[in-house]
Amino acid sequence: MQNSEERVVEANRLKEFCANVLRKLKVPHEEAEITADILVSADLRGIESHGVSRLPRYAKRLMNGWIRPEAKITVRRETPVSLLIDAENSLGQVVAYRAMERCIEKAEKSHLGFASITNGNHIGIAGYYAMMALKENMIGLCMTNAWPLVVPTFGIEPILGTNPIAFAIPAKHEHPFVLDMATSVAPIGKMEVYRRHRKPVPAGWAIDEKGDPALDAETVMRCVYKSKRGGLLPLGGLEETAGYKGYGLSLLVDILTGILSGAAYGPHVGTPEDPKPSNIGIFVGAIDVNAFTPVDEFRERMDIMINSIKASVKAKGQDRIYIHGEREWELEKQHRKTGIPLYIKVWESLRDLARQVNVEFAL
Amino acid sequence: MQNSEERVVEANRLKEFCANVLRKLKVPHEEAEITADILVSADLRGIESHGVSRLPRYAKRLMNGWIRPEAKITVRRETPVSLLIDAENSLGQVVAYRAMERCIEKAEKSHLGFASITNGNHIGIAGYYAMMALKENMIGLCMTNAWPLVVPTFGIEPILGTNPIAFAIPAKHEHPFVLDMATSVAPIGKMEVYRRHRKPVPAGWAIDEKGDPALDAETVMRCVYKSKRGGLLPLGGLEETAGYKGYGLSLLVDILTGILSGAAYGPHVGTPEDPKPSNIGIFVGAIDVNAFTPVDEFRERMDIMINSIKASVKAKGQDRIYIHGEREWELEKQHRKTGIPLYIKVWESLRDLARQVNVEFAL
Repeated sequence: MQNSEERVVEANRLKEFCANVLRKLKVPHEEAEITADILVSADLRGIESHGVSRLPRYAKRLMNGWIRPEAKITVRRETPVSLLIDAENSLGQVVAYRAMERCIEKAEKSHLGFASITNGNHIGIAGYYAMMALKENMIGLCMTNAWPLVVPTFGIEPILGTNPIAFAIPAKHEHPFVLDMATSVAPIGKMEVYRRHRKPVPAGWAIDEKGDPALDAETVMRCVYKSKRGGLLPLGGLEETAGYKGYGLSLLVDILTGILSGAAYGPHVGTPEDPKPSNIGIFVGAIDVNAFTPVDEFRERMDIMINSIKASVKAKGQDRIYIHGEREWELEKQHRKTGIPLYIKVWESLRDLARQVNVEFAL
Repeated sequence: MQNSEERVVEANRLKEFCANVLRKLKVPHEEAEITADILVSADLRGIESHGVSRLPRYAKRLMNGWIRPEAKITVRRETPVSLLIDAENSLGQVVAYRAMERCIEKAEKSHLGFASITNGNHIGIAGYYAMMALKENMIGLCMTNAWPLVVPTFGIEPILGTNPIAFAIPAKHEHPFVLDMATSVAPIGKMEVYRRHRKPVPAGWAIDEKGDPALDAETVMRCVYKSKRGGLLPLGGLEETAGYKGYGLSLLVDILTGILSGAAYGPHVGTPEDPKPSNIGIFVGAIDVNAFTPVDEFRERMDIMINSIKASVKAKGQDRIYIHGEREWELEKQHRKTGIPLYIKVWESLRDLARQVNVEFAL
């Protein structure tokens, strides 16, 4: 199904195109593949805010020397269960991917493996790295801080990132549990999508300069990027509905990523438009289920839990209760079959980028 | 300041009273001290829902054999960084305390130490165990599942616990960051406090049998314990304001506590009134900051971050931005000086309990 607002693109072709652009910008062959796979994976899973729409920004940063094209993954500190990695401003995807590989190796030998990364860049969907642990039947996790967009409880200045938390946990026959959530009510990427589609922003997602609800994406963008008063609300919203919990989760992520690694935190993380390295902090980890319980029994118990929740009584007008990640697995399956619907402006931005870097564009 | 609604009680006397009651119920000397300290610690920190008001319930369960008075902490699986502990229905406080001690020892030797506990009981405030890591300059964490009170997104049946997450992280001169939050908008203990004080329940905290907002504590209690339709909302509230994130966090806790350890999960966790063991799952852990970064530098960075957030612009009508745990540290200091204000009905329930078990009551 194709309409004038979108172009449907085959996933592998899209991935190959992204990799070609990155290679043209001096990203080594395999590192371009990794980055492209992670970007397209977001679109496959229906998270268009973190998918190929980000490529033009990455390209601009690579062209301007604000991101280093070849990955540097310098280990500054290491134990059998932990790593401190200096990404030296490499592509976020490549560093987080390699760090997660190392965590999985550590967890295979020592049951746990956690890495904290400094001097990083935007990593795309945090869930991707957490999901890398699934093929080893491990629990994976990933967090990253991000540029300031969120107001703390009782504050009006956007000084916190949307700082996502992702966990991936294997089941047996059921889809794995994959929680991948910004610690704000909504991520800024969603606001960009709302702006594109001119959709009103629901009350409770963001506040304006006066602290009143911000009900359109333009206002939110002005607050966070121009006036620096007002912005996204932390998960929970205002104080009365426990927004201080989302604020706390955001701080927790900032501490485990920015403060633990020595990267930037909160107000100091660079925006995608800042003409300098972003210095993002990242935290990834792998947990060997077998350290606690036989993994087969664990996976069976996961299935039973998942089924009991899905079988519970639905609210009026609802016919299904979802487990986290379930919609995304289904979308991925569908998109692999029918192609990925790219919003026309995203498609155009890729076409323009292809011209700019002189890469063939046949999407 | 004393009013007819409350009795102000000295913290150490209150603790001694609780320990005496527990000893009378065959809890060994030191284990009674630990449990009493954790209960009073909640009241000191202003979390009255998890403090000594719980003692009569614990006492009833001890008297009826639904909690074992002497702790059993049977290690079923162990690695240098992990433990699976069978609590064999011991007092939750004692088992979580001992497990956290073991995790700290493991983190001292091996940088990380995590324990998953099965066959546990209610542990009081999760933050207490996380905070045990602070004196070693480590990051502490604690999660526990709990009996079903929370509805999943698109569901109407309360099948999830309020499943709290706690993290304690040291700073240098500033108070440590202590996040201790139920993954629902509000914990049920708060609803009990609201019922006692006849305060209306804010919209967005809970829904009734029809899915409409539940605006008084009696309705919430009826929903979760009697009709089993409607209940507390997960953090974020309904779907539009990202309640599926709180639902996801609740599931995450249930998996790391109940499913990983083999304890009960979601709908199967026993309520405090069920005449049988609760089979609660608990997860505690300690992370050695030095594995990632020199701890002194980390603590300095924490101070800088805390101060920059507190110095940011306040919303209209607000003169202070709080860091998590800050209010509680201040309340504890005040309560140690001036005593703990116990709600009169809580005080009366302790007086009645004292008579019942024949322990001196002079509070």
